[in-house]
Formats: sequence, C-alpha cells, structure tokens
Amino acid sequence: MQTRKHVLRRSPEGVPSEDDFELVEATVADPADREVLVAVRYVSLDPGQRSRLGTGSDYAGSLNVAVDEVVTGYAVGEVVESNHPDFAAGDSVKGELEWAEYCVVSGDELSPVDVPAGVSESAALSVLGGTGRTAYFGLLDVGEPRPGETVVVSAAAGAVGSVVGQIARLAGCRAVGITGSDEKVAYVTEQLGFEAAINYRTDDVEQALGERCPDGVDVYFDNVGGEIYDAVLGHLNQRARIAVCGKISLYNEDDPDPGPRFMHQRKRVREEGFIVHDFANRFEEADERLGEWLSEGSISFREHVSDGIEHLPSAFIGLFDGDNIGKQLVEIHHGGNEP
Amino acid sequence: MQTRKHVLRRSPEGVPSEDDFELVEATVADPADREVLVAVRYVSLDPGQRSRLGTGSDYAGSLNVAVDEVVTGYAVGEVVESNHPDFAAGDSVKGELEWAEYCVVSGDELSPVDVPAGVSESAALSVLGGTGRTAYFGLLDVGEPRPGETVVVSAAAGAVGSVVGQIARLAGCRAVGITGSDEKVAYVTEQLGFEAAINYRTDDVEQALGERCPDGVDVYFDNVGGEIYDAVLGHLNQRARIAVCGKISLYNEDDPDPGPRFMHQRKRVREEGFIVHDFANRFEEADERLGEWLSEGSISFREHVSDGIEHLPSAFIGLFDGDNIGKQLVEIHHGGNEP
Repeated sequence: MQTRKHVLRRSPEGVPSEDDFELVEATVADPADREVLVAVRYVSLDPGQRSRLGTGSDYAGSLNVAVDEVVTGYAVGEVVESNHPDFAAGDSVKGELEWAEYCVVSGDELSPVDVPAGVSESAALSVLGGTGRTAYFGLLDVGEPRPGETVVVSAAAGAVGSVVGQIARLAGCRAVGITGSDEKVAYVTEQLGFEAAINYRTDDVEQALGERCPDGVDVYFDNVGGEIYDAVLGHLNQRARIAVCGKISLYNEDDPDPGPRFMHQRKRVREEGFIVHDFANRFEEADERLGEWLSEGSISFREHVSDGIEHLPSAFIGLFDGDNIGKQLVEIHHGGNEP
Repeated sequence: MQTRKHVLRRSPEGVPSEDDFELVEATVADPADREVLVAVRYVSLDPGQRSRLGTGSDYAGSLNVAVDEVVTGYAVGEVVESNHPDFAAGDSVKGELEWAEYCVVSGDELSPVDVPAGVSESAALSVLGGTGRTAYFGLLDVGEPRPGETVVVSAAAGAVGSVVGQIARLAGCRAVGITGSDEKVAYVTEQLGFEAAINYRTDDVEQALGERCPDGVDVYFDNVGGEIYDAVLGHLNQRARIAVCGKISLYNEDDPDPGPRFMHQRKRVREEGFIVHDFANRFEEADERLGEWLSEGSISFREHVSDGIEHLPSAFIGLFDGDNIGKQLVEIHHGGNEP
C-alpha cells in the first residue's frame, strides 16, 4: 500500500516554514506481529510540538523528530489491518501516529477511541483528549482556584484556554480571557461564559487587566509567556498561582529578550510548570468529568479542522499566528487509496 | 527615663546610608495599662527590613517605617516595668521593639524568651527564632527535599542559609552553598557540613555549579536573586523546586535589569515565594526540632554581634555587602542608664 507522509527536511529556525517539511510518497510495510496498519483520520496540532522538531531539547524526549524522519503527532485513525489481539479492522484508535495517510504502529501504543454518542471521534484529540486533560489538571491541580477568585487565561480562545475558562467558571471563579481578535473576545464571553476578555492586539493589556480584574488576579494560566505574562504580574494578588502550560510567544526564539525580574517572594506567588503526562494516573477522572460536563452542556468546544494532508505544515505554522479558534486539527482524506 | 533611639530621616535610595538615620535623645513615657517598659538587649537585622523603610510597599505592611518615625525591628529585651499580667520586671522577652535603649510596647505583642540552658537569649532571634523557622519551613515545606537530592542555597553563610544547608544535610541531601568569601566557603564546608561551596566573587558560578552539582540541582533556596539565580536555572533538574526566601541583590534596585525568561514548563519547575508568618500555626514544631538539633549538636550557628546602639545603621547596611557570617545582631548596652 502507498501513502503520502511528511518528512522533516531541516530543523526549523524561528517560526517553522513550509519548506521545512516535504510531502513524500512511500510504501507502507505490512504490519508485523502486534503491529497495526492505521488509516489516519484526524491529526492534532499543538504549539508544544515545535520543540520536538529538529535538534532542540524537549521534555518528551522520545517523541523528538530528527531531520529526515517522518513527522509524528497525536492522532485518531481507523484500523485497516491488525496483528494485535486488542484491535480489529474498523476500530477507531488514538495514539502517536505519523503525519501520513497510512502508517504502521505497535498496537501496544494505541488506545481505543471512546467518545459519547453524538460526539465526533475528533473530540478524543481535543476536549476529551490531551487538550481537555491539560486544562483540567493545569487549572484545578496546579492553579488551585477557589470560588470567588479571578482566573486569567491567555490564548483564551485556543484549544486549552477555552476549556480552562469554562472549568474556572464551573469552579465558581470569574474567568477573564486574553486573546487576539474581537471575534475571539466575542466567542469566549458570549458562547463560553467568560466574564470578560481582552484583545491584546488592540487593548492596552496592563490597563485592561486593571479594569476587568478589579479584585486582582488569583490564578494566571499561562499559555503564551512574554509580554502578556509580564502584564499579568503586576495584577497578581497575594498568594497567586501561575500555572505554566506553555510559552508560545517564546517557542520560536532561540534567545528571547530578557524580561522583568519578578519577586515571587513579595506576594508569595507560586509559579509552576507542568505537563499533562504528570497526571497520567488520573486521566480517567478527567475524561469522566469532562465527558459529563460536555453531555450536560456545561462546557462546549470548537474544532478548527483544516482539510487534507497537504495542509498539515501550514495548519501547524498557523498556530503561531493564532489562526485557530478552538482545537486545530487536520482531517486526512484517503481518496482512491481507501482500502 | 531617657533613651536614645534611631529615627528614619529619609526614604533610602538604593543602598541605605547612615545619613538616612538619626540617633536622637528622647524621654520614654510611663507604660500604660497592659504596656511594658523594655530595656532592648539584642536587635535582629535582616535584609527584608529594607523594603519596610520609607514608602515602598511591603507584605508586612503594618511594620513599615515612615520617614520621621522610630525604626523598629525584632529584638530581645528585659522587662524593666510591667503593667501587663503576663510579664514582670526581669523577664526576658522578644517582639517588635524599637531601635532604642528603652521602649514601651504593648505586652500583648511580646513573647517570653525560652532557650535551652547554656544557649544565649540572642538565639531567640537567630536559630531559635525567625531565622531558624524561615530555614525550616522554607526548605522542608516549600523546597520539599528528598534524600539523595542536591540542595543549593545562596547567601549560604548568612543567618538563614547556614541553617538551610544543615537541615538539608539532616534530610539526607547534598548541600551546596554559594557565598562571598573563602572564609565563608571554609565555614560552611568545614564547620557546617556542606558538601561543597562556591565563592561567587572568585569562581565562575555557572561552571562551578556544573562541577559541584554533577547530578544537577533539585532544590534551590534563593536568598539573593539576580545573576546567581540566573546561573542556577541552567542546572535545575526536572521537577526542581525554587524556594524564594529573598532577593537581596535586588532590594536596593528600583528598576532591576531584566533577566532571562525562564521556561518553568520545560522542566516542570515550581518556584514559590514564602514568608515565615505563613507557617505561624506550626512555629512550635519548628522551635522544638531546631532546639533538639541544637542540643544534640546536629546543627550549629554563629552570630555576628556588633556592639552598641550607634552601630545599628552600619550593621544593617553591612548586610548588603555580606559583612556578616551567621546572624547579624546588634547588642545594646545601657551604661549609666541602667535602671
């Protein structure tokens, strides 16, 4: 069987460019014992993948993609042929797959996709997958919001941010989002129930935070770092918590400009970085609660689905411009190759 | 009764100077109901007091000293006359007293000094007081060291740092100190049991940390901030903790130079500021354990005692040059004023 797949051709410098990737044609090997042939359906795109491309160091070391290797990413697919006892043709599965139409992976690394009736299987990559879990544990366990507190989240209309604000609301907090367009401001305040939002491209963030967080900031869920992070620092309350999920504004900088020296001690601030895998033994809890909230309509989500394998690099690059509202996915079509 | 006392004459700019203070002669009022007249014996000096002088904001707001007010500080004294049921003449007491020979304070704000036999009452200001408690809770509760880990502490020969390293050793960790002279390096390694130490004035701190912390740094107890903090960042292990006790290198800067943007998320680092009062409900626990360790010889301490009320400003200013080894105190003599 033939497939198209994306190979990393060089280590990106700064913002990745389409030329860093090449879509090549290749033959897919037959699955060996315990291996599975998968037709890739939806590929998850996440800013954190930036650090896996090329030679940079990364916390998820084993997932690094070296130059001239096939790019991989978390994805949902359909089993075409299985030599693994847990899976049969037609099963919907998720796991680390290739940026490809088809690929062969160890069945030991796959999980079944299990979403409530009426919910797209792609939700296993967004609100019912790593995205939702990241929001859930990052906010509740790292941020530790208490009822009545003010929670500020950056990249608020993004995959994780949009869920963070909604969980904050469910936890009895005021959710204030920082985002990059009036459309996104309207989305999070009108559809997701954020109390307020700030458009960092047109508002003075520092001043807007003062206006929209009159009681200060108790939890800052940081997705972006850089100047937006700096602006929040001055509004933190005593004993505030900063949950550091990501620093997208810095990912493409080899040597970021220095920033203000924050005196964590003066306000007894706790700033803590986390990755969702740290909570692996509690994924079931998160999936259950997120599923309940989704079923009862307490949270909603959007996916920004780009069409076609050829758009994987551009959709990934678009993350750094904030092109997406909600979770950025690429849907892979199989056309004449459909088995 | 007459007393001499120090009045803050202007808000210090940058490093405080002796001209910011004036030693004046004044009459001490008779103690009213529930008040106590105290002869001040030992005054505790601490870099954190810098932020209380003048108009700067401070976490311990009620202790701020405005221009033309008498300077106050934690101190030990002897009761001369008491109108409070808990205290009688001759009692040794501690509390927030004036930088004075004599002062009148509310007995409700005083505590009895209770040190083991053979230990100077001044220990109530150092290892058995706020200093020891700060080291105890900051290291054990904020830093959360585990046996076998490497703990780095800056201002290692100072009041708090010298206790931190010894508690780290008792917790089964490798203690590595950063300090400012060869004498201090020798003190912490030869007398306090630190495994290694670095003289930041003569060593390349970045390189020395690599050599002396071959397994990386798990806990950094930060007393200084600034460039030493920066140097430690690169050596932090995954899931390292930074306990921010102070940032003495920045206290005299209105507008510190910016620093590197640290990606807490990459290494899931937790950085947390604290003040010892946050642990007030557990002071007894700390005092007991520190007292035991002291009695059994598991920890030792030094006090750097300057003599005479007139040296209070210079001793305080000396803290910022690292003049002291161990806890900086000033002993007040009462000469002809002795009642």
